[in-house]
Amino acid sequence: MKPILDEAVYCHVGFVVDGQPYVVPTGFGREGRTLYIHGSSASRMLRALSGGLPVCVTVTLLDGLVLARSAFHHSINYRSVMVLGVAHLLDGEEKLRGLRAITEHMVRGRWEDVRPPTEQELKATSVLRLEIDEASAKVRQGFTIDEGDDLSLPYWAGVVPFALVPGAAVPEPRLPSHVRLPRYLRGYKRRPERRDIG
Amino acid sequence: MKPILDEAVYCHVGFVVDGQPYVVPTGFGREGRTLYIHGSSASRMLRALSGGLPVCVTVTLLDGLVLARSAFHHSINYRSVMVLGVAHLLDGEEKLRGLRAITEHMVRGRWEDVRPPTEQELKATSVLRLEIDEASAKVRQGFTIDEGDDLSLPYWAGVVPFALVPGAAVPEPRLPSHVRLPRYLRGYKRRPERRDIG
Repeated sequence: MKPILDEAVYCHVGFVVDGQPYVVPTGFGREGRTLYIHGSSASRMLRALSGGLPVCVTVTLLDGLVLARSAFHHSINYRSVMVLGVAHLLDGEEKLRGLRAITEHMVRGRWEDVRPPTEQELKATSVLRLEIDEASAKVRQGFTIDEGDDLSLPYWAGVVPFALVPGAAVPEPRLPSHVRLPRYLRGYKRRPERRDIG
Repeated sequence: MKPILDEAVYCHVGFVVDGQPYVVPTGFGREGRTLYIHGSSASRMLRALSGGLPVCVTVTLLDGLVLARSAFHHSINYRSVMVLGVAHLLDGEEKLRGLRAITEHMVRGRWEDVRPPTEQELKATSVLRLEIDEASAKVRQGFTIDEGDDLSLPYWAGVVPFALVPGAAVPEPRLPSHVRLPRYLRGYKRRPERRDIG
């Protein structure tokens, strides 16, 4: 479960307002069994709920399209984690800790190489905390499961693999030329090693 | 809005059961202003609700990490669409139409090159229909918005772009060698052309 959470760049947070579900993408970080979620859209809702916000945080990694000889057996290879629970809005020291986890989740080593947030910036940011207590992982991998007569049909079957590939880092135009690309960004990648189809 | 929906390989569907939101990844297709959603997990819930299921369908395309000189201005470049509404479970002719849209969304041209579903397979599949009436797009692009004194800080700033890249199609091991890779899979890609950072 943790490798899936850690490979994902962002998550989708689901929450409910007046019976209507909302699903918004946002940044997050993990520290042990705690998820820190960048509040953005969810935070306004949360402020209205004093006791905390029932949420679902889902992370999905796309691995490939599964083409089968039959329409029925077409599928998608993916790895997904769903965490259910109640999220709480953070303050003070814990909020800072959450921001650190979220920043480090983006790029490991980054937190020590930025200007830390001011009091005012901290106030303008929302961080939610969610414990990973009720969580499930779902993984689909491998080829199609066509069977029987279908195997002799003249239709192509197989997998079109997908990978989320980081390109070369592009410096901001105003960056002075003496500020070099930091070591932690050289050879940056999310996935520790290439996975097989199967 | 439509280019974002069409580029996305899958969506996240949010729905509510007893006040608890759930967010599950699933395949989908679009035909005009109609979304067809592959039912999977949501369908069991839906059967319990005769009148339809309030859902939120969110699609997110990740474009890059935005690194700023200040922790506060770190961000993610993305394009996202959120569709709100009530989903209905389909049957018969309309279900088949939905499956066609979902299959064609995976790979254009595929529906004419597979064995169509049998009656029994159709029964074992769930397709939801959702009209794109209440929808919003959110896009973040470009570099950081660091300002003032921050611009002279010695920290690297810029964008690490991301692209979802399809690899070479891998034939299923049982595929006879005379079944060649179909034309619609050669040079397969989701994104019509490479986008700029800005």
